Amino acid sequence: MKRSPLAPIAFPALAPINGVRLAATAAGIKYQNRNDLMLASFCPGTTVAGVFTKSSTAGAPILLCRDHLESGQAAALIVNSGNANAFTGKIGEQHCQDTCAAVASSIDCKTDNVFVASTGVIGEPLPIDRIVNAIPKLADKLHANNWQDAAQAITTTDTFPKGASAQTTIGDVVVSLNGFAKGSGMIEPDMATMLAFIFTDAKIPSPLLQRMLVDANQQSFNAITVDSDTSTSDTCLLFATGKAANELSTEIKGDIEQDIADESLVEFKKALQTIMLDLAKQVVRDGEGATKLIEITVSGAESDRAAKVIAKSIANSPLVKTAIAGEDANWGRIVMAVGKSGEQAARDNLKINIGGMLITENGQVIEGYDEAGVAKHLKDNEIFIAVDVGIGGGAATVWTCDLTHGYIRINADYRS
Amino acid sequence: MKRSPLAPIAFPALAPINGVRLAATAAGIKYQNRNDLMLASFCPGTTVAGVFTKSSTAGAPILLCRDHLESGQAAALIVNSGNANAFTGKIGEQHCQDTCAAVASSIDCKTDNVFVASTGVIGEPLPIDRIVNAIPKLADKLHANNWQDAAQAITTTDTFPKGASAQTTIGDVVVSLNGFAKGSGMIEPDMATMLAFIFTDAKIPSPLLQRMLVDANQQSFNAITVDSDTSTSDTCLLFATGKAANELSTEIKGDIEQDIADESLVEFKKALQTIMLDLAKQVVRDGEGATKLIEITVSGAESDRAAKVIAKSIANSPLVKTAIAGEDANWGRIVMAVGKSGEQAARDNLKINIGGMLITENGQVIEGYDEAGVAKHLKDNEIFIAVDVGIGGGAATVWTCDLTHGYIRINADYRS
Repeated sequence: MKRSPLAPIAFPALAPINGVRLAATAAGIKYQNRNDLMLASFCPGTTVAGVFTKSSTAGAPILLCRDHLESGQAAALIVNSGNANAFTGKIGEQHCQDTCAAVASSIDCKTDNVFVASTGVIGEPLPIDRIVNAIPKLADKLHANNWQDAAQAITTTDTFPKGASAQTTIGDVVVSLNGFAKGSGMIEPDMATMLAFIFTDAKIPSPLLQRMLVDANQQSFNAITVDSDTSTSDTCLLFATGKAANELSTEIKGDIEQDIADESLVEFKKALQTIMLDLAKQVVRDGEGATKLIEITVSGAESDRAAKVIAKSIANSPLVKTAIAGEDANWGRIVMAVGKSGEQAARDNLKINIGGMLITENGQVIEGYDEAGVAKHLKDNEIFIAVDVGIGGGAATVWTCDLTHGYIRINADYRS
Repeated sequence: MKRSPLAPIAFPALAPINGVRLAATAAGIKYQNRNDLMLASFCPGTTVAGVFTKSSTAGAPILLCRDHLESGQAAALIVNSGNANAFTGKIGEQHCQDTCAAVASSIDCKTDNVFVASTGVIGEPLPIDRIVNAIPKLADKLHANNWQDAAQAITTTDTFPKGASAQTTIGDVVVSLNGFAKGSGMIEPDMATMLAFIFTDAKIPSPLLQRMLVDANQQSFNAITVDSDTSTSDTCLLFATGKAANELSTEIKGDIEQDIADESLVEFKKALQTIMLDLAKQVVRDGEGATKLIEITVSGAESDRAAKVIAKSIANSPLVKTAIAGEDANWGRIVMAVGKSGEQAARDNLKINIGGMLITENGQVIEGYDEAGVAKHLKDNEIFIAVDVGIGGGAATVWTCDLTHGYIRINADYRS
């Protein structure tokens, strides 16, 4: 698979996170001659937050993670690629339990503190023996520096591994965040993305961690779409080892609305949002067959929610996506996509901008519209679309990619 | 453009409908050397019903038709291809008025009884002079036998003209219906399809005609999708000339629920449903780039509405559509599409059938699943998918086509 033309130049340098060790290996789950199984271990006291697909046919690992999340404590994360362990019935749930038991025995932790994620083909049982046999070797290889190997091991149709990091402060204490993600097709996350894992040495109780993850997710993974197909395996987990020994400015009172507003967390929340949006946009940059990254901002909507519905309607329109693939300034298709969204739009106040150039006003194309300028912008590989629908103050931004022959090529024979 | 491999062998023989005359001509609106303007005239007393796109950016002809529909009376229908007269501001509305005035003066009828539809590119003003100049010549050519010419004149990216007819009875009187439609891309009608026109010699008051059209539309044009993109121009109009001089079994009481149940209308309603579904399926058979017609039936849903949402979720999934294009029995993508629909589904009771062969049961693939049989079915050009979601008694059927390189080819350079 050729590396996406929208890929970053290289995987970023991820420094160790105190309390996190990682390892990857080739377990032969589906792919030959490449790593497909990854293990992370966490120091005692690590808290965890997670968001998952809302799919009614969610995979077995999702059910297990939701269950294990209740304690708010994590000791390990194990992830395989090549098989999603989704729609695999009772045996799929048993395979999750077997995996957790093998990890718990190898690194000496509680089974309930192991988190599992799987990605790949739907409906085939996991080759559980190969996974269980690989775990002791993986545990022996755990190391603070294996970030890129771990990120690579969880990929499927991805053409590059996706990582991001940030440093910030809580009070006077410097804390670090590292994250990695995978995803390329079957991407319109509905509460989480395909697979994304974020790690920090900050010390944050799990209810606060959960709230911050949910908030940051809304404007990162929940704001991207490749093909409108929501996966059965979407998972985003955030682990906090507490090794940075920061303190919050005030004591935790148990009232989430009050606690989440703690002044010392302002910078951390920003850094979390930044790293998650970075990873989310990398997923779009690796969208199956993508040649253009498209940012779509909708303003003037009835509410932020309505703005997001309209932005997604544009982002998921096959006709908009193919027009951009063809570098065709066919803005009429944006008008169509606004119209079909089901949300309010004032036709005669609709303002469509491409690449900062205004195209419409008063329900028609403006006089002297700079078609050559828009056509030139469409030759870039980052495209900016802004639409004001002229109703109210709601706004939202989403990211998507174009729809090309590459998408058809990848998906008409992915499984066979 | 090569004729779709799913096209019918030939345009059907449409006999005259008493009270209807048609003509087509090449007005040079956008295409060269082909008919692009069509006129139909109706005898006095013709009643009319219509359903239109719900798009908030609907084209000017939609606004005009909604207005003219209030009287329930029709004298003429004029349709052009090559330009949708959508998102053309006040001048677009003026062009509709100018068109109606020219038709009214040529065939001597009231302006308010003229219906207009346009299809083609969005956002460019109509070349109104060419249309107005062509109307007197069109009026001179009106004839009872011009059905195929009329159907051909309204096409855009269509690869074949779409017609259908039926004979039925109201009481003892034989009545006839003819219809034609266009549509190939930007097809997920939301209350109507791209353009469809149906004509009958039955004598039916307009409120009853309207109710029958709305009902039949739900399970025909509103049950198809090519690419999930709802057009700004979707229009379906039904004209009844009354020349058959049938009578209803009881007198019209003005109570629509009671009147619509009139026993003499049972056969007519069936015929209307049949002809509309025939035309709707022809639109899917001509879906841009289509090589497979796909019928998707969902049962066991919470309600008929929920079943339709799930069926549309499968029908619009790019991953399902590309798998079928690749003749790949990747039924896991159907599981995914059920899961993402937002409607209830019981994972462990989900029964997926392809080509009549059961694939899943108890939340996993069945033992001895006939993968070779399913693979063989997928080589046909009509594919049948049936899914029972195991919740309740709701059911729905929708039709779509596969997603191929042909769709990308047509849409990455349609306008330029």
